[in-house]
Amino acid sequence: MNNKEVPHVVIVGGGFGGLWAAREFRRDAVRITLIDRNNHHLFQPLLYQVATAGLSSPDIAAPLRHILRRQGNVTVLMDEVSGIEPATKQIRLAAGGSLGYDYLILASGARHAYFGRDEWASHAPGLKTLDDALAIRRRILTAFERAEAEVDPERRRAWLNFVVIGGGPTGVELAGTLAEIARHTLRREFRRADPTRARIVLVEAGTRVLSTLPEPLSQKARQQLERLGVEVQTGAPVTAVDADGISLGDERIEARTVLWAAGVAASPLGRSLGVSLDRAGRVPVASDLRVPGHDAVFVIGDLATLSVDGKPVPGVAPAAKQMGTHAARMIRRLIGGQSTSGFRYRDFGNLATIGRWAAVADLGRVRLSGMVAWLFWLFIHILFLIGFRSRLIVLINWAWSYWTYQRHARIIVGTEPGETRPAADTDAVNRERVEPAGADPRRKTAAAP
Amino acid sequence: MNNKEVPHVVIVGGGFGGLWAAREFRRDAVRITLIDRNNHHLFQPLLYQVATAGLSSPDIAAPLRHILRRQGNVTVLMDEVSGIEPATKQIRLAAGGSLGYDYLILASGARHAYFGRDEWASHAPGLKTLDDALAIRRRILTAFERAEAEVDPERRRAWLNFVVIGGGPTGVELAGTLAEIARHTLRREFRRADPTRARIVLVEAGTRVLSTLPEPLSQKARQQLERLGVEVQTGAPVTAVDADGISLGDERIEARTVLWAAGVAASPLGRSLGVSLDRAGRVPVASDLRVPGHDAVFVIGDLATLSVDGKPVPGVAPAAKQMGTHAARMIRRLIGGQSTSGFRYRDFGNLATIGRWAAVADLGRVRLSGMVAWLFWLFIHILFLIGFRSRLIVLINWAWSYWTYQRHARIIVGTEPGETRPAADTDAVNRERVEPAGADPRRKTAAAP
Repeated sequence: MNNKEVPHVVIVGGGFGGLWAAREFRRDAVRITLIDRNNHHLFQPLLYQVATAGLSSPDIAAPLRHILRRQGNVTVLMDEVSGIEPATKQIRLAAGGSLGYDYLILASGARHAYFGRDEWASHAPGLKTLDDALAIRRRILTAFERAEAEVDPERRRAWLNFVVIGGGPTGVELAGTLAEIARHTLRREFRRADPTRARIVLVEAGTRVLSTLPEPLSQKARQQLERLGVEVQTGAPVTAVDADGISLGDERIEARTVLWAAGVAASPLGRSLGVSLDRAGRVPVASDLRVPGHDAVFVIGDLATLSVDGKPVPGVAPAAKQMGTHAARMIRRLIGGQSTSGFRYRDFGNLATIGRWAAVADLGRVRLSGMVAWLFWLFIHILFLIGFRSRLIVLINWAWSYWTYQRHARIIVGTEPGETRPAADTDAVNRERVEPAGADPRRKTAAAP
Repeated sequence: MNNKEVPHVVIVGGGFGGLWAAREFRRDAVRITLIDRNNHHLFQPLLYQVATAGLSSPDIAAPLRHILRRQGNVTVLMDEVSGIEPATKQIRLAAGGSLGYDYLILASGARHAYFGRDEWASHAPGLKTLDDALAIRRRILTAFERAEAEVDPERRRAWLNFVVIGGGPTGVELAGTLAEIARHTLRREFRRADPTRARIVLVEAGTRVLSTLPEPLSQKARQQLERLGVEVQTGAPVTAVDADGISLGDERIEARTVLWAAGVAASPLGRSLGVSLDRAGRVPVASDLRVPGHDAVFVIGDLATLSVDGKPVPGVAPAAKQMGTHAARMIRRLIGGQSTSGFRYRDFGNLATIGRWAAVADLGRVRLSGMVAWLFWLFIHILFLIGFRSRLIVLINWAWSYWTYQRHARIIVGTEPGETRPAADTDAVNRERVEPAGADPRRKTAAAP
């Protein structure tokens, strides 16, 4: 039997969905091409930790080809897919050329989106990739640096105001961690700005934060956020975002740092399929995860929309993994001449972390909050990092961080596009002699000539 | 005694020189403003490890204000100095405004330089900052990815050719580590490209590598490099660098990845002083490290040029630290009405690492090479990381790396300026069906329908 005769499965996207699909095929007589625009699989649940300087990029990411090195039937390509032609079973690659497939699994996920207000993007960066996380880290750390360098109290305050838009898990994590950084991590490190006076506002258009959790847990989450020093504003849709802050209808919040955690839109690849998409750009799939009308195309993860037993499958990592495994199994059946079966989502519960010792968990019958939920969150996240060398490093970093309140990755790299660092304050007042906080008077007396 | 009456010392640059100067003042009645364009101090001797994916940025860098948080007489500013006016004792800041000083320590270091061939910069990036390191890491890792995606054997080979220009310590470290990555780290992870067939050429214009070491050690270093699989070309000045390779007079080496480790030029700040500089842009200082004609200005580290007992002080970390300490002590004397004394350089020896178990060390009477030198290098570098949390993490990462040959930071982030990732091959052939390496035949038979 010739190698070329085994079915060729192309998987687009190396996130949880795509990677789990590839792994499911590890003993099958197929050849697999896994394509991702990045060279790495990302453990997205901890991405906010990179954005808030608690972890380094390599702690939560690993090269796809390294993860799959022992699986001889997989070829990994770092490339971008520019289009799909289901009629001829071809995909087009951005680098040129095209690639035929017998079966296609689309798992290219979602990006953050601005509900048609793309002009907000430059003022309010979102968080989906490692590059996003490094850009947010740069903004947060630079804001405190600017506050320290600024001599005008009004402008200094604007540098110490932070707004997070969106009260889902990412927004809650970012706001909670920001509060911790300001209140604890940076304390005593500044001489003129006082980070503990930073104002952190979490803005949510709906009536409560973490709206996918039961209402009592949303309440708990809000209380824990407020205890950390976060102002929570619910029922307030954002009407404007600019370089100096945001507007909520008539209300105005001045802030030089605004982060976006409010909306996602599916990868544009879905459009190539020629089927009608939902409002978020997702592809409606049949119960076996195939695209109606395209028998050889499966869509999984955040790019797919599907309801099982009347309940939509949520856009979370466990759902993507389960869909990846299911799609691979269905392809195996099709190759064997069998019929497909419907995807069933096993919901293990919902978790959201808020900050030090603060989290909420909905495990069906059991609901947890506070320290217990936080320890559970910690356990689960370390557990799922297994298989990365990262587990040990992340544990050490977290232990260190929770003892000292320090975040070791407070390193600013890169510059904003078109910006020279530091950006010139266009209307900076003429500064005369910086006045640092006083030297220790005892020292002064002792050492004075 | 009013705070403003204590002398104001401005230190420009938070490298080894500037940081050691600031620390020397820890018990003095001075106020210090330490200015750096980055928010971090960088442990530059390990920068090549970030470039070659062995370590993460935060492993070898720490925020300056965190390092100095307990030293109440220091204000840290992240800013850039755009000019110096020694006559009025003022420095101008890029962000606007100016700052007066009583004493100034200039420690803004050096950048890599292209001997007036600035057009080479985009083809052959150099290594001085964390941003440089991440850019080089991106180029190296992307080259192997491109080789895997490329179907044309000729072009694939060009992606697997690497040239390092400059046989000093940085060039030797980069070439040696590149060879290790190609021969060991990436082995078996590619299906079409064979990283073990990568060609790594180290080009040195002079007659030998590591020319600051005694000749026998240069020989040893060359042997160790060749054992790792590096081609060493000495006595060959580079005459052209372009997107497809380099020329050494008539000889041409095709390579898509060229790294620059050949030359440095001092920070342009020296020019503001109105004194004549040496060819590399360095400021000639008097024996007490002051600039002749400017009694309140000290220049230290890579920005200074000075000979002690007829021997030039080398541009290495220990020299910068010693100069920083000396400058601070001289300022203390001047404040106390005493006269200054001459700087004496204590030379503890010279070390260069080449790769796994390979290094050379010149400790005056004792010369080491091979495993002993390598273990000594390891010990010294871990030792000098003390004071960073990084020590533990670096130790773990190295232990991991030396057992498994893995380099955990193989994560590509960022894009080249003006490049979308991956860059389109403008003349890519039309690719038909990728042919991955065969699936394991046993598996195939077992699982075939």
